[in-house]
Amino acid sequence: MPNGTNCPLCDTDGGRVIWRGAEFRLIRADDALLPALYRIVWNAHLTEFSDLSALQRLSCMDAVVLVEQTLRATLAPDKINLASLGNVVPHLHWHVMPRWRWDAYWPQSAWSAAQRTMDDARLARVNALLPEVDAALLRAFARRFGGT
Amino acid sequence: MPNGTNCPLCDTDGGRVIWRGAEFRLIRADDALLPALYRIVWNAHLTEFSDLSALQRLSCMDAVVLVEQTLRATLAPDKINLASLGNVVPHLHWHVMPRWRWDAYWPQSAWSAAQRTMDDARLARVNALLPEVDAALLRAFARRFGGT
Repeated sequence: MPNGTNCPLCDTDGGRVIWRGAEFRLIRADDALLPALYRIVWNAHLTEFSDLSALQRLSCMDAVVLVEQTLRATLAPDKINLASLGNVVPHLHWHVMPRWRWDAYWPQSAWSAAQRTMDDARLARVNALLPEVDAALLRAFARRFGGT
Repeated sequence: MPNGTNCPLCDTDGGRVIWRGAEFRLIRADDALLPALYRIVWNAHLTEFSDLSALQRLSCMDAVVLVEQTLRATLAPDKINLASLGNVVPHLHWHVMPRWRWDAYWPQSAWSAAQRTMDDARLARVNALLPEVDAALLRAFARRFGGT
């Protein structure tokens, strides 16, 4: 994929935008099997984490950990998974995923084969909290990085 | 898993130790389908990245990116994958994985189903470079973090 050409994270936001800054944005993905999946997406088309400057890396991981802290505080998941892969979409983005022992993939990765059918009642309880989680993230990002 | 009890990353190094510091170590895993798979393993038994202090997080990601930079310089992979999952072994560790278009899992994650049989000739070429990569990592870590 040439830089930025036909790149879904250049052409679209990649999900519901929770907060947007000059260098990166926070989006919530819509994945039926992975509730409360958020991503930090770098705005410019870069491929690797080490393509960022040292200061940009600090900001980026500060944002990743702020999502992690907010998800722990609001959803109390059993685990947080962090990953920057980009094999399919080579535009720098970090996944921040809350994981639960009851979720479809536990204890395997979110890219592994599903281990069980989704627990619809538990899923619905997480989904019901998403407006509150989105709002907590927006407050935390505005406080840390500015903007509204 | 209670903290540190029967934890494989408390009980063992978790791989070939390339560099060891007071807070974390760099190991190379031995995985037949994932050549040159390195991990930053936190020495103390912590579970989440956000369990680290802000300064510890800086050191940790500084180490992760130093592995990434060294792998890019020595192996020129098609992509780097970074991940901290810990669902199975909930002791903080970061995977730094070079990925190639010919590798067994490409373009899927290293936790996905294999996509093809391993290309033994290419694998052998990467494996032949590992002593050089290990040495480059040791030099880079000693320069950045001290020790030998």
